[in-house]
Amino acid sequence: MTHRINRQVRLKSRAVGIPQAEHFEIVNVPISDLGDNEVLVRNIYLSVEPAMRGWVSDVANYSEPVPVGSVMRAFAVGRVEASRHSDFRPGEFVTGMFGWQDYAAVDVKVIQRKITETDLPISTSLGVLGLNGLTAYFGLLEVGQPKTGETVVVSTAAGAVGSCVGQIAKIKGCRTVGITGGPEKTQICRDEFRYDTAIDYKTDNLDLALAETCSEGIDVYYDNTAGTISDAVLKHLKVGARIVICGTASIANWEPIPEGPRVERHLLVKRARMQGFLILDYTDRYTEALRELTQWVRQGLIQYREDILEGIEHAPGSIAGLYRSENFGKRLIQIAPQE
Amino acid sequence: MTHRINRQVRLKSRAVGIPQAEHFEIVNVPISDLGDNEVLVRNIYLSVEPAMRGWVSDVANYSEPVPVGSVMRAFAVGRVEASRHSDFRPGEFVTGMFGWQDYAAVDVKVIQRKITETDLPISTSLGVLGLNGLTAYFGLLEVGQPKTGETVVVSTAAGAVGSCVGQIAKIKGCRTVGITGGPEKTQICRDEFRYDTAIDYKTDNLDLALAETCSEGIDVYYDNTAGTISDAVLKHLKVGARIVICGTASIANWEPIPEGPRVERHLLVKRARMQGFLILDYTDRYTEALRELTQWVRQGLIQYREDILEGIEHAPGSIAGLYRSENFGKRLIQIAPQE
Repeated sequence: MTHRINRQVRLKSRAVGIPQAEHFEIVNVPISDLGDNEVLVRNIYLSVEPAMRGWVSDVANYSEPVPVGSVMRAFAVGRVEASRHSDFRPGEFVTGMFGWQDYAAVDVKVIQRKITETDLPISTSLGVLGLNGLTAYFGLLEVGQPKTGETVVVSTAAGAVGSCVGQIAKIKGCRTVGITGGPEKTQICRDEFRYDTAIDYKTDNLDLALAETCSEGIDVYYDNTAGTISDAVLKHLKVGARIVICGTASIANWEPIPEGPRVERHLLVKRARMQGFLILDYTDRYTEALRELTQWVRQGLIQYREDILEGIEHAPGSIAGLYRSENFGKRLIQIAPQE
Repeated sequence: MTHRINRQVRLKSRAVGIPQAEHFEIVNVPISDLGDNEVLVRNIYLSVEPAMRGWVSDVANYSEPVPVGSVMRAFAVGRVEASRHSDFRPGEFVTGMFGWQDYAAVDVKVIQRKITETDLPISTSLGVLGLNGLTAYFGLLEVGQPKTGETVVVSTAAGAVGSCVGQIAKIKGCRTVGITGGPEKTQICRDEFRYDTAIDYKTDNLDLALAETCSEGIDVYYDNTAGTISDAVLKHLKVGARIVICGTASIANWEPIPEGPRVERHLLVKRARMQGFLILDYTDRYTEALRELTQWVRQGLIQYREDILEGIEHAPGSIAGLYRSENFGKRLIQIAPQE
């Protein structure tokens, strides 16, 4: 085992703005021996997230920046190949922050969970039954607090988080309006993710479309973009609206902070609330949420899409692709068969 | 009674931005006879509020704009002179939306309350024991939710609302930092309103001063200004911070909406909340809050200042003066003796 090759995708340099393929390099190293309480995981799917832009930036953030020269931080799901801890046995599937690499020799503390919903593809553990689903779940239900009959607007509505937000809102009896880009994603929003209305911000006049669709006002806005999409949404808030700040995909660079229309007047007149949200604050409630999400997926109440790139050589350019919106659904890189 | 003169300050035209003296005119009219359930109030103090800018604007707002040609909408406190309702008797002091005029013949529904704390000057019913105190009370305690030991930052810290916010925060065991303009107001903040620190935004480097004073971060920001003061404060939030959007005094004109640094990243990284607040949403809890505020004023735990202009002829220019920050404390116009 120790003589097999481990391919690692390492951070080569810091990007200004969106990290591109050139900011990473792939190196081959031997697999290290296991220490006490360590497990060797053969990664099968690697995750690609919008948040990775923040992870490789040295701008103040909610996590330490990935050091230049290190393996890229990433969630992954894989199979236990060897174990020096009694809780884990070869053949079991586990998820965790295993990095963009073939093999991870990690302390068991790094393992997030053992996959038990074996009737579903293990790739779901990185998307709809992983952080994307959890982000949708807690962001919408805890921060957005939607009530039956309310209008919920979602930006990046066809994305891994957005699509799940829309469907959970639907399960909770809300009217859902998805904002996405392009005719194909608009159609997916309507047909697969069951949005009551889908708006194509690239061709529709967003302000007019919102005025028509949400003539009574917006109760909850789940914001994955910031920028001009949010500027338009904020004009249509209802009294008591809640805005969930989950991501800022449309802002290429926060250094320096870009300008936009001030929000205070909207918040004041509508007594609205705008609140930032980080999924890592909810770790002790993941199990409860995953149980419910798994049930909804099994019942077909939550549909999901995956965008699977084949081969680790796609990893370096995969973040930039997300910001070009080239993916349909949760982006993953498959680097080994599930069997 | 019907032949006495009633001087009324009427809205003459709409302002772009801050209303000036020229947007009002004073006219003399007879006092109308009383109908059933009506009371004639002899106004003694008229209130002047920053919110009046919004009341005379036809931009979307939380109240109908004052019609051009009408008496200026205003809170006032006065003495009942005549009554056609059994709940009110001549000689009693009452507050309500009586307008900028000598006499108001109003339905009893317009009366907000009868003044019972007769040991205190009746002018307090328009300030610290009126909407200013209530705004400070509910905005800080309900929206800001300060906890013992937390750091609370207040803008327009020496103002009628701000000074009360700082002192309530102090009562609740918080560390208080006041932002105000000029050496005199800075000193008042320290000496009278017991702020732990007072920052003069006109001479201090606000960003540096906040970095020094709030090196552990800001838990609650009670925002009366928006604009560049808030832009600086937002850089120093603590994880879980609450921002109470109470007023936007530093923004002269919201049409079109001015630009400023986008806030989403601050809110996201700090999981912070920014929430607009309108005191009128708390009307059914005024009595409870006034009881507590009155107690604090009697105990000397809340100090207050009043800026009293003598004579109704000062009313037309009094709003613009507020926005020039020429007042020290709650601005009132006295138009009759209390006796």
